[in-house]
Amino acid sequence: MTPDRPGLSTPRLIGLDWGTTSMRCWLLGDNGRILDTRRLAGGLLDMAAGIDTADPVARARAYEATFLDVCGEWLRAGPDVPALACGMVGSAQGWYEAGYLDVPARLDITGPALARVPVAGGALHLVPGLRVPSDPRRDSAGDVLRGEETQVIGALESIDRPDTEHVLVLPGTHTKWIRIADRKVLSFTTAMTGELYGLVTRHGLLSHTGATPRRDDAAFARGLTAGFSSRERGLAATLFGARALVLDGLLEPAALADYLSGAVIADEVRHLLPQYGGADHIILCGAADLCRRYATALRARGMRTRVVDEDAAAAGLWSIAVGAGLVTAGADAR
Amino acid sequence: MTPDRPGLSTPRLIGLDWGTTSMRCWLLGDNGRILDTRRLAGGLLDMAAGIDTADPVARARAYEATFLDVCGEWLRAGPDVPALACGMVGSAQGWYEAGYLDVPARLDITGPALARVPVAGGALHLVPGLRVPSDPRRDSAGDVLRGEETQVIGALESIDRPDTEHVLVLPGTHTKWIRIADRKVLSFTTAMTGELYGLVTRHGLLSHTGATPRRDDAAFARGLTAGFSSRERGLAATLFGARALVLDGLLEPAALADYLSGAVIADEVRHLLPQYGGADHIILCGAADLCRRYATALRARGMRTRVVDEDAAAAGLWSIAVGAGLVTAGADAR
Repeated sequence: MTPDRPGLSTPRLIGLDWGTTSMRCWLLGDNGRILDTRRLAGGLLDMAAGIDTADPVARARAYEATFLDVCGEWLRAGPDVPALACGMVGSAQGWYEAGYLDVPARLDITGPALARVPVAGGALHLVPGLRVPSDPRRDSAGDVLRGEETQVIGALESIDRPDTEHVLVLPGTHTKWIRIADRKVLSFTTAMTGELYGLVTRHGLLSHTGATPRRDDAAFARGLTAGFSSRERGLAATLFGARALVLDGLLEPAALADYLSGAVIADEVRHLLPQYGGADHIILCGAADLCRRYATALRARGMRTRVVDEDAAAAGLWSIAVGAGLVTAGADAR
Repeated sequence: MTPDRPGLSTPRLIGLDWGTTSMRCWLLGDNGRILDTRRLAGGLLDMAAGIDTADPVARARAYEATFLDVCGEWLRAGPDVPALACGMVGSAQGWYEAGYLDVPARLDITGPALARVPVAGGALHLVPGLRVPSDPRRDSAGDVLRGEETQVIGALESIDRPDTEHVLVLPGTHTKWIRIADRKVLSFTTAMTGELYGLVTRHGLLSHTGATPRRDDAAFARGLTAGFSSRERGLAATLFGARALVLDGLLEPAALADYLSGAVIADEVRHLLPQYGGADHIILCGAADLCRRYATALRARGMRTRVVDEDAAAAGLWSIAVGAGLVTAGADAR
């Protein structure tokens, strides 16, 4: 055994999930095993601060600097280790536009589908997003996702019978409902529920309570009930109802945020579950707290759920890298 | 005829509509004729800047300073002219809590219902708001309004058969749908549609287009169509659809705001019109541009509309002042 012989801890891939509001990076070894992780709060939105985002050169320089800052140690230790990123970094507002695959889209993304950005003597490969094209004749809006395709690919690694039909919900700023079958994405819908919640609780008039929010599961459950019964009033009226409850002393100001969280999630679920129902259960993939909230909402509508770890993106990146020939499946033979 | 003899231009009442985001003041003469107006952009939200809002003394001092700043000239010219204000200035977060009248509520608000704040050797009278109490047994949220009761009273002055049943819509940050009959408010519902629109277009991720918004009635009409058909997707998904349209080159970034305006208004109308329908027509009272948008949305649903001037608040303040004995109806006999 020589000191140089590759072992279990030999790096094989640098994987990045680089989104609008956060950046998660993994150093992956044989079989996609996670050797190390880095997390940066603030994603593309923070990148845009202080630079002219309309200038592609300034933008590329800013992305490169952040990439080298977060992953530089890994790159120096293994200059030949390939790097693969998914998420909004590959959007028109990101580092380099990685394009979209039209739905229905096969999830075995191959080498030619990846975009390639030269960096640090090597290259960063970018995963394309998925797109439901808008229909100009009917003036009906399509949909887009970027990063979630990789989470779905990763999630399929950890479920039974990945080739059959499944519905996945990926909660977040822009929650995605995704129907897959036979390893193809058949359809998906985005609800900007998390963004509405953030806007109302951070910038809205309802937020002027002076109280520090604290977790209140009972308030969340009451918000769910209000959101499920919002068919008659609509979301804009249901949200205002929280103000009346506070004024009438029936809702603690500190519990307002959890009430509103329940109301917006229930409004989303009551609209989208009928379209994405029919499955035996729904696979949730995302941050633990958000998955818990969606699981509670879905259970209240009689739907079973299964939660997949949000590190699914790391497994997805590994799987794509294998399919694209960036790495060799299993242990590297070098 | 002496120089001191009161004439057509003798001030009889200082009236204020002092809301969350703006302050409008009128100097009214005989019969409530408008002699002069003052308008201050920024209402209660700006008052709260720089003071400890939890300190009622600091708050009262800030309100008094603004009141004297805006109306001081009128007060000095006529120290005995009474002053009457409606709106959020009379809320718990305002100058002084003026209470609420429970719905169903008679619209002939009398003297004892007014709150009284000493100021500048005289007093500012405050109009109470209206309230649908929350129901703690069913955990159903009630509703509140403040300022709109005065606009409704004023609007009744300018319509035929004010004693019969009417539905009024007062568009704004928090749009109110109000059913009245026999000069009583029977029920009302608040939709925070204007606030959602403002949050999404000012602070939301969709707003990061780099384009300067410009009026686009065709985009507004397309947003209406999307909002009316949002039954299947829900508001949070319909709003995200605008992003796909922009990415697909089917919606100009500069027209995004009008598209979103159409989508949120249509979502509100499709929910609340069925509850407030049945009327022959709907009376709109508010800013001209907003009334135009709601009229377009309501017409698309087969509902006729009639627009009442947003200065209805001035007429309402005069009417309340007469009812409360602060002024004498018609020309003052002094």
